[in-house]
Amino acid sequence: MNRTYIQDLKNNVGQKVIVAGWVDVRRDHGKLIFLDLRDKTGIVQAVSNAKNEKAHVVVETLHGEWVVALTGVVHKRPEKMVNPELLMGDIEMSIEEVHILSQAQELPFEKDAELNLDTYLDNLPLTLRRERSRDIFTIQASAIEAFREAVRREGFVEYQNPVLVGGDGEGGASAFRVDYYNNKKAFLATSPQLYKQMMVGVFERVFTTAKIFRAEKHATTRHLSEVVQMDFEMGFIESHEDVMNMLQEVMRHMTHRISEKHPDILKKFAIPAPLVPHIIPRLTLREAQTILEHERGIPCVGEPDLEPEHERQICEWAKEKHQSDFIFITHFPTEKRPFYTFIDEKDPTYTKSFDLLFRGLEINSGSQRVHNFDELVRRMRAKGLDPETFSFYLQAFKYGMPPHGGCSTGLERFTARFLGLPNVKEATLFPRDINRIDKLLSE
Amino acid sequence: MNRTYIQDLKNNVGQKVIVAGWVDVRRDHGKLIFLDLRDKTGIVQAVSNAKNEKAHVVVETLHGEWVVALTGVVHKRPEKMVNPELLMGDIEMSIEEVHILSQAQELPFEKDAELNLDTYLDNLPLTLRRERSRDIFTIQASAIEAFREAVRREGFVEYQNPVLVGGDGEGGASAFRVDYYNNKKAFLATSPQLYKQMMVGVFERVFTTAKIFRAEKHATTRHLSEVVQMDFEMGFIESHEDVMNMLQEVMRHMTHRISEKHPDILKKFAIPAPLVPHIIPRLTLREAQTILEHERGIPCVGEPDLEPEHERQICEWAKEKHQSDFIFITHFPTEKRPFYTFIDEKDPTYTKSFDLLFRGLEINSGSQRVHNFDELVRRMRAKGLDPETFSFYLQAFKYGMPPHGGCSTGLERFTARFLGLPNVKEATLFPRDINRIDKLLSE
Repeated sequence: MNRTYIQDLKNNVGQKVIVAGWVDVRRDHGKLIFLDLRDKTGIVQAVSNAKNEKAHVVVETLHGEWVVALTGVVHKRPEKMVNPELLMGDIEMSIEEVHILSQAQELPFEKDAELNLDTYLDNLPLTLRRERSRDIFTIQASAIEAFREAVRREGFVEYQNPVLVGGDGEGGASAFRVDYYNNKKAFLATSPQLYKQMMVGVFERVFTTAKIFRAEKHATTRHLSEVVQMDFEMGFIESHEDVMNMLQEVMRHMTHRISEKHPDILKKFAIPAPLVPHIIPRLTLREAQTILEHERGIPCVGEPDLEPEHERQICEWAKEKHQSDFIFITHFPTEKRPFYTFIDEKDPTYTKSFDLLFRGLEINSGSQRVHNFDELVRRMRAKGLDPETFSFYLQAFKYGMPPHGGCSTGLERFTARFLGLPNVKEATLFPRDINRIDKLLSE
Repeated sequence: MNRTYIQDLKNNVGQKVIVAGWVDVRRDHGKLIFLDLRDKTGIVQAVSNAKNEKAHVVVETLHGEWVVALTGVVHKRPEKMVNPELLMGDIEMSIEEVHILSQAQELPFEKDAELNLDTYLDNLPLTLRRERSRDIFTIQASAIEAFREAVRREGFVEYQNPVLVGGDGEGGASAFRVDYYNNKKAFLATSPQLYKQMMVGVFERVFTTAKIFRAEKHATTRHLSEVVQMDFEMGFIESHEDVMNMLQEVMRHMTHRISEKHPDILKKFAIPAPLVPHIIPRLTLREAQTILEHERGIPCVGEPDLEPEHERQICEWAKEKHQSDFIFITHFPTEKRPFYTFIDEKDPTYTKSFDLLFRGLEINSGSQRVHNFDELVRRMRAKGLDPETFSFYLQAFKYGMPPHGGCSTGLERFTARFLGLPNVKEATLFPRDINRIDKLLSE
């Protein structure tokens, strides 16, 4: 007899089945023992009766997280025992045979105990089994799949971005150093930027889901040392607005797909599906600052970027005025954006760049890029960078690059904002930061 | 007027269109100039006539890799000018207007020049634009997509595997060291093994497409310092054969999907779609060695593994005897496999492990894993490893793990064997090895 998944038991009422999974909870009533058995598809209540002595003595030995296979018959629960809150609340199964697949030691805390973040992280192989964690990473799996679907149907080709790079990148973010061969140094990529631009010369439209690394000494709710970025880059554009239009449709597809696949999880997190209007509101940085200053009393006009509190406030504004959980902020100052950012012809102190904010947090950054070789070299020099160290990358521009642009969405940040999680570490399976790689780093 | 992709021009005969792309070739016949224009979808011949002086003088300035937008009318070619070898061989377009989007410097070599591998790699931003390279990485993009499709429909959940790890892994492959914060050392993951096992406790069936890193001082046609592995791991199995059965279907899906999507590329590479029989042949290592020794005169019975030449020969045998481009080799010696490999109850000198060979090369390695905590600790000690350094991982087993197993397929190796490429570097966009990160590493 094959194993039946718990979600399919409803189709097996009155039949004998084998289910397998983890003991989620055991409730001992002496002659009756109730097990909540958990598998990848759900939880079902299984009942052992002392009349079946052979099975019952085994059930008496079981504890939380023991792995078992149960043979038994599926029953409809009596009317008054139906629990409409549970997915399998109208059925249960009797236990006829028990087969222990794996034992577990005593758990370090109660199944539903509230844990502080460090305890949660210290015990991830166990705590990730909690319903809340499984829900978060189910959403994350659907998010990255929906991203790929969205860009693939627009003709983007997937490519694999390198992690090991020869230089410390774009001169901005700090890069981790690696001991390469023969005492050579390498670095971990801080973004897929340079490679995805080269790939525009190959496939015009490319995407990648890439690991990137930032050796930033931040310990905030927004920063991680290792994250996944969902990047796309497209050739033959008119301006950064083509990229924003594409991103808008990608976000629409992602939020729709996730919301339609997981209404149960949204309900559990008590959070509505994100609002994505036909046109996501777009403000220049200066317009946004003017609104913040005049309508919300936050003096910030003239600053080179938005502070986290400004991001939260302008998102509130977008939600109130435009019924949107997203807002684009455009035209960041030339001095604050990397050398490859296209300068606005109308006012060269600003760039054709944008951030996308989602429920209070920047989750995406993008722009039109410089495609002219001579200008790119000039822009590197203006930022104090040596074009010689970029000679590999510069070949793409030496040999003909179309106008192009692209952007990068943080998977963990997207997941966190989608579910309203306050800390991005909760949306990261195994978060790495200044204090931790799996275990706390000892002093 | 919107841009038309070259592949769609057949639907626009007699109409005015705009196409945009790179000048692939310019053939100058004085009053007539022929351009082969290349975009992401194909190549079309465009003709400039000196009678249209304004456009013609611009066309005269164009060279290879210049990026242009051309306005003109699509024509059917006269019968005797039709080139059936080309996808767009029965149409051409007249050039009415030319708009230069980007210039290119003189190319360092002819478009179709044969290049040695180092020259090819030194100039990747240019050489990746060649048809052969675009075909290889089109196949690769379809391969990884088909892998995800195959496992997702079997209920596997995607997860993101960490790259930065705290220890140097499973004690086998050499790991690159990273300067982490505060003079701490970290390492680059040599496999997703430990994390995907932990994830079996969370989702039972998981997959990841993960970057891994090997600081091996090999410079062969098979080795790279950074590769993509397509991994899956599944709980509640009976033995390693469940994993092999799953992998067999994954390979069948991948080869079918790629072959049906890209018959044109297979034709260009003059290679047939891979043969995947209903049951991929399975030999134990000892059986394979006996065949090699008795049928092929290669003395190897008793050796702990297959040499590359043995892999090629046993693949030839599988092709001849079983019409299969794949073969499983099972039951590698316990002493040669990592600590987490399940030992065969029938003969503890061997493990419930396998390699999958594809057209002469090992592309996948897998096994049933140890799921019992005490045995796992014993096995670590027997390999001279300190269980304390694995304490994070061991939590998964302390708190109940089902019998499980999984495997790992190299994306670059799969791509190389699919297309019959002799060197796996050709199937890697930006290969990293002992001598190279983009540029050759200077001494």
